[in-house]
Amino acid sequence: MSFFPPSLEKLVEKFASLPGIGTKSAQRLAFHILSLPPEQARDFAETILEAKQTVHTCGICQNLTDSEICSICSNPRRDETKICVVSDPKDVIAMERAREYNGHYHVLHGVISPMNHVGPDDIKIKELVDRIANGQIEEVIMATNPDTEGETTAKYISRLIRPFGVKITRLAYGIPVGSSLEFADDATLMRALEGRQEM
Amino acid sequence: MSFFPPSLEKLVEKFASLPGIGTKSAQRLAFHILSLPPEQARDFAETILEAKQTVHTCGICQNLTDSEICSICSNPRRDETKICVVSDPKDVIAMERAREYNGHYHVLHGVISPMNHVGPDDIKIKELVDRIANGQIEEVIMATNPDTEGETTAKYISRLIRPFGVKITRLAYGIPVGSSLEFADDATLMRALEGRQEM
Repeated sequence: MSFFPPSLEKLVEKFASLPGIGTKSAQRLAFHILSLPPEQARDFAETILEAKQTVHTCGICQNLTDSEICSICSNPRRDETKICVVSDPKDVIAMERAREYNGHYHVLHGVISPMNHVGPDDIKIKELVDRIANGQIEEVIMATNPDTEGETTAKYISRLIRPFGVKITRLAYGIPVGSSLEFADDATLMRALEGRQEM
Repeated sequence: MSFFPPSLEKLVEKFASLPGIGTKSAQRLAFHILSLPPEQARDFAETILEAKQTVHTCGICQNLTDSEICSICSNPRRDETKICVVSDPKDVIAMERAREYNGHYHVLHGVISPMNHVGPDDIKIKELVDRIANGQIEEVIMATNPDTEGETTAKYISRLIRPFGVKITRLAYGIPVGSSLEFADDATLMRALEGRQEM
């Protein structure tokens, strides 16, 4: 039994279909939209359409861009002998924030996940292999997340590209900077110990 | 420094402008929109426009509706001598869920809140007074939230309408059903004690 008008009900449903938005939040968001001045609500709707129309994946690295080739791939000052492989466009942002890496990227748009029916052909692995086969790549840095699926994906790709003879590395595991040993989980501590370096 | 295309950046900003949505959530929502099939993204945008165009306030009770008079106000089987005053359309849904009330409503669309520069003229108090002045209202049930602003609003309105000689009541305070005394706060316990009834 609902006392909302159908069009409001539909807007609530639309918001509730977004990831991480429950019914209560969806109601709050829908009411907020209704409380906006008409031009702002229209602007919101148009932004969705515009983003959907203009944003697509870069022809080289598969990161999101509104031009044919993204700003990183087309930047001549970046080291094109290195590819950092990440699962998600957000990970590119995270890496760029660290201001340590100056190479190129490859965005897989997912990880291999049998539980979710995502196989190697469902993510951008073929495009990565093509880049390595065709280009002057010297190092591939696997930067998928340090969880089971990220690990599996990294291992799968590293086996696949090993025949090309490029250097394959993995981001270091260890204690996060600023955290405390006391709160580190066993697996992280074990990896930190394994990866210990001379001072 | 951003590596998102401007139209994606703008979509993230739009989502981040919604209440309770932080930057991280806004990114997740924007990426989700981009991952939708084009027709679903268009449908989302159109739902926003349609809801904004068709939903407005009921000419009588100020609740949201897509017709001139809402389904509650136009229902001849509801008791039109009673008005339950709530601050928000969501409160109407909550009251209806309880299936105990069969009167009409009045939605204030806010509460008096000097901190947020909301005065009596900024919410639908005048419309309520007009209804009481013109109609055959016998009882006004104040059902604003039991917080400072809700209380203030209820007290303000009750003083304003007292001259009309209608019965003015307030929802009962007390221990929520199914909860435990142990976790009740002092103010609630005090009110529960004050409002105790003979068994």
